[in-house]
Parts: sequence; structure tokens; C-alpha cells
Amino acid sequence: MAERVYLYDTTLRDGAQTQGVDFSAADKVRIARELDRIGIDYVEGGWPGANPTDDAFFADPPAFKRSRLTAFGMTRRAGRSADNDPGLNALLVTPARVATMVGKSWDFQVTVALGIELDENLRMVADSVQHARTKVEEVMFDAEHFFDGYKANPAYALAAAKAAYDAGARWVVLCDTNGGTLPHEMRRIVGEVIKGGIPGSHLGVHCHNDSDTAVANSLAAVEAGVRQIQGTLNGLGERCGNANLISIIPALMLKMGFDTGIAPEDLKNLVSVSRALDEVLDRTPNRGQPYVGKSAFAHKGGLHVSAVAKDPKCYEHVDPASVGNMRHIVMSDQAGRSNLVARLTEIGIDLDSVKRESLVRVVDQMQVTFDAREATDLVDLVKRLEHEGYAYDQAAASFELLVRRALGEVPEYFALERYRVIDERRRNAHGEWITLSEATVKVEVGGTEYMEVGEGTGPVHAFDVALRKVLTRVYPALTALELKDYRVRITESTVGTAAKTRVTIESEDDKGHRWTTVGVHTNVLEASLEALQDSITFMLFRFKDE
Amino acid sequence: MAERVYLYDTTLRDGAQTQGVDFSAADKVRIARELDRIGIDYVEGGWPGANPTDDAFFADPPAFKRSRLTAFGMTRRAGRSADNDPGLNALLVTPARVATMVGKSWDFQVTVALGIELDENLRMVADSVQHARTKVEEVMFDAEHFFDGYKANPAYALAAAKAAYDAGARWVVLCDTNGGTLPHEMRRIVGEVIKGGIPGSHLGVHCHNDSDTAVANSLAAVEAGVRQIQGTLNGLGERCGNANLISIIPALMLKMGFDTGIAPEDLKNLVSVSRALDEVLDRTPNRGQPYVGKSAFAHKGGLHVSAVAKDPKCYEHVDPASVGNMRHIVMSDQAGRSNLVARLTEIGIDLDSVKRESLVRVVDQMQVTFDAREATDLVDLVKRLEHEGYAYDQAAASFELLVRRALGEVPEYFALERYRVIDERRRNAHGEWITLSEATVKVEVGGTEYMEVGEGTGPVHAFDVALRKVLTRVYPALTALELKDYRVRITESTVGTAAKTRVTIESEDDKGHRWTTVGVHTNVLEASLEALQDSITFMLFRFKDE
Repeated sequence: MAERVYLYDTTLRDGAQTQGVDFSAADKVRIARELDRIGIDYVEGGWPGANPTDDAFFADPPAFKRSRLTAFGMTRRAGRSADNDPGLNALLVTPARVATMVGKSWDFQVTVALGIELDENLRMVADSVQHARTKVEEVMFDAEHFFDGYKANPAYALAAAKAAYDAGARWVVLCDTNGGTLPHEMRRIVGEVIKGGIPGSHLGVHCHNDSDTAVANSLAAVEAGVRQIQGTLNGLGERCGNANLISIIPALMLKMGFDTGIAPEDLKNLVSVSRALDEVLDRTPNRGQPYVGKSAFAHKGGLHVSAVAKDPKCYEHVDPASVGNMRHIVMSDQAGRSNLVARLTEIGIDLDSVKRESLVRVVDQMQVTFDAREATDLVDLVKRLEHEGYAYDQAAASFELLVRRALGEVPEYFALERYRVIDERRRNAHGEWITLSEATVKVEVGGTEYMEVGEGTGPVHAFDVALRKVLTRVYPALTALELKDYRVRITESTVGTAAKTRVTIESEDDKGHRWTTVGVHTNVLEASLEALQDSITFMLFRFKDE
Repeated sequence: MAERVYLYDTTLRDGAQTQGVDFSAADKVRIARELDRIGIDYVEGGWPGANPTDDAFFADPPAFKRSRLTAFGMTRRAGRSADNDPGLNALLVTPARVATMVGKSWDFQVTVALGIELDENLRMVADSVQHARTKVEEVMFDAEHFFDGYKANPAYALAAAKAAYDAGARWVVLCDTNGGTLPHEMRRIVGEVIKGGIPGSHLGVHCHNDSDTAVANSLAAVEAGVRQIQGTLNGLGERCGNANLISIIPALMLKMGFDTGIAPEDLKNLVSVSRALDEVLDRTPNRGQPYVGKSAFAHKGGLHVSAVAKDPKCYEHVDPASVGNMRHIVMSDQAGRSNLVARLTEIGIDLDSVKRESLVRVVDQMQVTFDAREATDLVDLVKRLEHEGYAYDQAAASFELLVRRALGEVPEYFALERYRVIDERRRNAHGEWITLSEATVKVEVGGTEYMEVGEGTGPVHAFDVALRKVLTRVYPALTALELKDYRVRITESTVGTAAKTRVTIESEDDKGHRWTTVGVHTNVLEASLEALQDSITFMLFRFKDE
């Protein structure tokens, strides 16, 4: 039977330290759900008491099916008893039944940064672990700067780790805080710690990628005997990032034969879990990311491709499907096709039932650089649109509308005949700045023309107000439509204000439905209006009569 | 004395295989010069005869001061003598005096992909090396798929490598073509090859990053005895990339004590060599890239930052200056006061010199929910603005403007008195859709009022066109301003079209400067205009007189 290695995710705490990353509590819940879905053992939610976001998260954490929620904090302060330390206490009263405490193990840091006696630090570690054990179910100790500390003073670093272990910590986690350790040092030091009296079954490592070896360091530590790995999704983390769980998980499972608690079926969610984080961060997925990147199993045309077809094992280190990825043949694009056909089948559509003439009608109002009559079939059309910037994998509602429009199934609930949006800023008579956005729309609904004007806090908002003034008369259900998220991206790499933009809108109604639509245009406003109109149409098409 | 490890760069050949990369011969020359400047031993220029770009490069290669130019090709074909093989011959007649030949070492590939006898393949390797030795000064053999081959049939893989070595190859390079090997396998197999009769001083490795361990694999191979590493700048390469020389070089020099032929002074060019490739590729440098990324030595968080100031070695695995990088103190809401003070000191600002009254003036045109008179000092103001959505850690130019405005150092280069933007869509007389954006601005520059109107592909673009119509009259330098990226985010999690948006704009001039500005407003257009005006002001403030 395969040996078990435990996984600990710190995307929500150490990952949140990343420059430019600023999770809301709702973002954290979204990511935590993904971690639970794939089956990560421990999900560190944050540091209770450190900031309002983490407090909000722990005040109302998501219910997990598989993961254990973990709270992070510090060992008690010097000169204070553990049960009289407010910081430590904050860590132990959350709904999390697992508590991880960080403390020092480098003698230099104890005497210089903390300015206390070496023995007092060991007592702080032991006391805190003992106290925490009476309050929560599982206690971990993160030995900060362990590897730098061990190189400077092995006996003391080991003593700090042992203090936690002897006090009853379920896990002692050796942290390469600065990320400077190389795999051969990792292997040697972990081996010495195990010889020093802490069994590998109680040891973990926490690596950073400053040396570009965080994944290898984690794997080297497992080889040397540790049985817990801490890391983050996509290697998110400050400086150069933390160890990337997305790379570590398949290596452990597919190459090293360990049981991570993740079933082979769950592993197929690896790509979607990785993408979910990119979504929250509004980052373009890294094409070259090992295992999950769009190019990770890309093969260039020619001889090579026929060889791949002959025996993929010759050219692929793992089966792309095992991690939810797929082979991507550059140039021929055959791989994309079967994927699309699969997606259409999923929403119950027979490709052959789509007439080629209908494709032209579908793109009528889209700004595309190709002639719709050139599209050979629906799959070809979708691929062309994706090339134009439409990201249908992130906007399932627009994808479904596109397809059902091609089938002639979507009624024209309304037709926007024209609009005008005016944005203005000037000083009023009192010399104060006034900014206003005003939209006029002319819309045809059921043979009748309506004209309305609306004001808003920006051009998209003003348009939304005016359009819905018209539409709610005929479709009162639309009052319940709420726009929940709005994202804008430039779709090309060399760009300016004139480049093509993609707008993604997430909408919600009062029955708990959520759907995402997309618009693409050189004009950011047009792209927004396209996504907005799709959102309204989708709600009418799908949920009006529920 | 430190032992020598040789470096071999294949950015121009294997790196050129990357999806989306298309080097011209001039690009190749530029990159080759950088490699020579830092002192890489071997620079592989390409594959003579494979494509017109490579032929152009070898027809007129750059003169090197330190590197050796290397040409790449294949061993002779089956059933042909080495001196009668046009492909092999093309490789040997270039100005490159080093030739690298790739050949098979996996029995399965020999019999299935090539369809020839195993012995014939060994003869192809030996003949080709022997023949090449009569034509060039140095010959290398790249054993393709060596590690997969070795796992399948160790004796045969070793026999192929030895055939090259015995025939006089200076280097036998073991290639992990699929990138599936993990460091512990690398170490074991390299050890066995050395025991099998090829000395480490004649062995190299060529790793790919499909397992996210290419750097660690290369270092593991050096530990096991090989003395040549092949890789690319920034890990460029197909799928997940090749081994990243930018990470390998400092590890070998600063951590493992090897001599790479690169002097400590040359190592300080590491950042600029890495950036040079990004420039050629027109890619945004990866902030989190180990050693050379802008965030590689970034510190966030209050307590932490004061500790870094006390002793940087506690928090930095190498001295940033040793690779030409520098410490970067990150601005952020999570950061404490000391963080901000350090950042201000970095740009040369004394906090006490900022008068409280001046803070009010600074936020005059910002849409903020607090009363600026409540801000106790500049640090407090920055923290309040970050709470409003300004992400200054991503927008250093706006941060600097904010601070220098508070100091009264930034002249008012122009004052936007009012604007009006009209976006319209309607059908024209032919029934075709017409979309237009038109902006009118009234701007005061140096006591004179100007009014201009501009058209654009969207409201922001139209505004930019109109505003710059005015400003370039007075500040011609602004013609060189180019907007490179434009990002929009909703700053709160529960949102709608009326929520607050943050716009980030990245700009560039024709001298290679790049800067990022931010704007926040409930109106996406206003937020865009704020970021745009900051970008223009920053360019005038910083670079106008250069």
C-alpha cells in the first residue's frame, strides 16, 4: 500500500503576502472551496486577529467536506504565560480545530530579533504547544528560518523543533523561510533531524522558491522522510513564491507512488483548481506552467506530431488527462476540436444539427476580423471567436447563448436600436467638480419601440439603468438581476488604449443562480454592453419562467 | 581552487521552439551578444540548414569576445556515410568551430521511430563524431531521450553515449527531452553513467522543466559529477521551458562554490541579461523570477521590514547586488508604518518635511470617502488611500507622484478644466452599425486655455487622443508615450456596475522607461482618466529633460 504524504495549503495566508495580491474574505472562501473540492488535507485560512479580512473569514468560514480548516498565529510572547497571551488566544478560539504556530529556531534571531534568552524561546515553543493542545484538536509548529538556523547552530535549531514535538505537536514543520536552501542540503538536514529524534511521520517542510528549487526541495524532503508538505496553488507567495502544490501533487502521486489523500479522479481537477486561482487574481494563466499550463503538452507540427500520435509516452512525461489537461497540437488544432465537441455534447447539442448559414447570423453584432461565411462549422466558428479574444471557458452563459443562437433557439427578447452615452466632468457654479454619466437607449421589444434615458456612476452603469428601465416593463423578472463582478482585460500583449478588450460580467438573481458572460471589442464600452446584453438575455432565456 | 562547470546556452535553438516565439536573425545577434557579455562558454546559434533565419545568423554571426559559437544538427542518416550526408555537412561548414549533434539513445525510438537496427544507430553516432572531429575543433553529442531510454534499457542508452565518447566527443550531453525526470533519478542515473565509463568531466545534461525541477535536476547532475549544463535564459523553451541558466548560474557560483568562467563582476549583469531577452520578446519581466525578478528581494509587512534593515542576511538568501538586483520595500495596506517610512527613505523623502495641510491639496481631485483633514500624516494618508482601493505596490509612479505632490515638488503641467465624452452606436443610412467615441477636453497649460476634440476606439482612447492633441503642442516629448497595458478591477467583492473600480495603466517611452499608475473611482472612465493623467505627469516629471 502506498505511504501517505499530507498536504497543507497556505495560499490564503502566505500566498496572500504576494505583492499585488489582496484577497477579500469572499475570494478566500472561493479558493478554500476549491481546495476542499480536490481534497487538500489542511487549508490554512489566515491569521486570526491580524487583519479584518482574516477575521471576517474565520467569523464565517466555508463548511468543508474533506479539508481541515487551520488557523495560523504565533507562539506566546516572551514574559507572558500562554493562557494569558491575547494573540495566541485569538488563534485558538476560531472555528478552526487545527492551529499552526510559528516560532523561532535560529539562535541569532532569538537573541537579536527577539532579544531574549535562548532557553526562554524553547519554553515559549513548548508552553504554546501544550496550551494549544488543550484548546484545539491538532497543533502544528512552524519552525521559522529552520534551515538557516540549522546551518548556523544545528543543536539549537533541533532543540527548538524537539521542544514542539515533545510538547505534543502533531507536526513540526521545518521552514526554509528565505528560500535559499538547495535540494541536497534539504535532504541532508532533514535526515539529520530524523536521526535527531523527530520521526518523519511528524515532520513537514515549508519551502520558498527563491532558489528556483522549491518543488524539488519539497520532494527531496519527502524522500528523506518528511510526510507533510506545505505549499500554495500555482506557487503563489511573496518574492519568488512558495512551493507549488500544483507541481508537487502529481509528482508525489504519479511519479513517486505516494498516497496524498487525493484520488486519481480528483487529480483530474488539477487544471481547474489552478485556473480558479488565476480567475480570483484576474491573472492570465501561465501557458508554460508544468502539468496544467496550456502549453504543457503542446507539440509542434510535423514529424514530431505523428510520433506523438504513434506513442504519446515517447513525448509526454505523464498522461495529460491524468491532471485534467490535454494534448495540444500547435498548428493543426485537432485537439481543440475534440474538446469542443465534448463540451457541446455536455450541454446536449448535436453538432450536425447546426446549419452553416445560421453561423453568419450569430456573429452579426460581434466585432470580428473574419468573414463568418468562412467558418466551416460551429466548432470552427467557436475557435475563431476564441482567437478574437472571447474566453468561453470562463463564460459558460455566453457560450451556451452562442450555440443556442446558432440553433435558432434563442428568441430576440429585445433589440438595441441605438444608444448614446455622455460622460462629463466640469465644475459647477460653486466651483465643485461634477461628474455625470447619462445614457439614452432606443430599444425594440415585441414590435414596440421604447426610448429611455438613465443616469449612472459610469457609462456602463448609466447604460444598464436606461436599458433596464425599458426592459423591466416587459420583463419584470429583470429587477432581480444583479451584476456581481466586472473584469476588463487587454487580450493582446502589445497594446494601448486602442487594443482589444475583453469584459467578463458575473451576474446573479434572487434565486441563487449565477452566470458569466463575455464581450470583446476594441471599445471597452461596447465590450461591456455586449457582456451585459448577454447577461440579460441569458437570464430571460434560462430563468424567466422558473 | 574552485572546480570548473561549463555553461551551454541553447536559447537561440531550443528556446526558439517556444510557442509564440519567432526570433529574427537580428534578435539572435542581440541575444548572442548578451550571452558573450556575461561570459557563457558555449552559445548555440541554431541549426544550419533548418530554416532561413538560422542560415542568416550563421552567414554573419556576431564576433565573440568570450563565448564559443556552436552549431546544432543531427548525426548522419542511416545508410549513408558521414562525409556524404548533406545535413551533417551543413553543420560542419559554418563559422562555428564547435558542433553539437543530436542522436538517439532509447532503443524503442531507434527501432520504432527510426526503424533501424540498434547497432546501426551506434555506428551512426560513432561515425558522425569521428567525421565531425576532422572538420571542427570541438564535437558534442546530445543523447536525446537519454533518461527515458536509460530507464527502459540502461545498457543500450549507455552504449549510445559511450559510442560518442569513444569516438572522441569532447562532451556527451544526457538529455531529459520530455522533462519527466526528478532530481533523485537524475543523480542516480548520472552516477551510473560515470561508473559505466564516461568521466564527469566529459558529461553534460540538458533538462526540461515539465516536472518543475529543471534547475534542481541540473544541479543534482553537477553534484553527481557532470561538468556541463545546458539551458536557456529565463528558462525559455517549448512546453514548460528548458533549465533556466539565470537560476543555475548563481546557485553554482554563490551556493555550490563552482567556477563557471563568469567573474563575480559579470554576475552583476544577470538582471540586465535576463531583461534583455524579455525586451527582445516584448514580454513583461516576471516579477517573481528567482534572483532577478523585481519582487525577488521585496519585503512586505511592518515588523519584518525593520528586521531586514537590522540584518539583511536574515531575510535574503543572497546579496541582491551580487546578481545586479536590489532590495525593494513593498508598499501595502498590510504593511506597518516602518514599511512606508523605509519606502519613502528609498526614494529620498523625509517624512517630517511633509506638512499636514498639503495632504488636503493632494487628494483634491481624488474621489475619497474620508475627509483629508483627518489624515494625521502622509503615512496615514497613504493607508487611507489604499483602503479606498489605490494599490500603490503595483503603481510605483502614482505613489511617487502622491508623495512628491505632498511635498509640493510636482508642477501642475496641465489642468483639465472639463471634458465630455460621447459614445454612440447606431445604424447608418446603409443599415450598418456605426460605433464612435468622441472626446472634447478643455485644458489649461501655462496660463493658456486650449480646447480640442478627438476620436478614438473607445472613451479612454478618445480622451487620450484629445488630451495629447493639446499637450504635445507644449510638451512634444509626450509623442513618445505609449500605453502598454490597461487593467480594470472591481475593488470590492460584492459589487455591480456601480461599484468602485481600480484602473492600472502601464506606460513606456522610447528610451526604455516603464512606469505604472493607478486610478480609483466609482466611474470606470474617471478611474481611467486619473491613471492616464498620472502617467502623463510622471513622464513629464521624470523623463522630460533626459
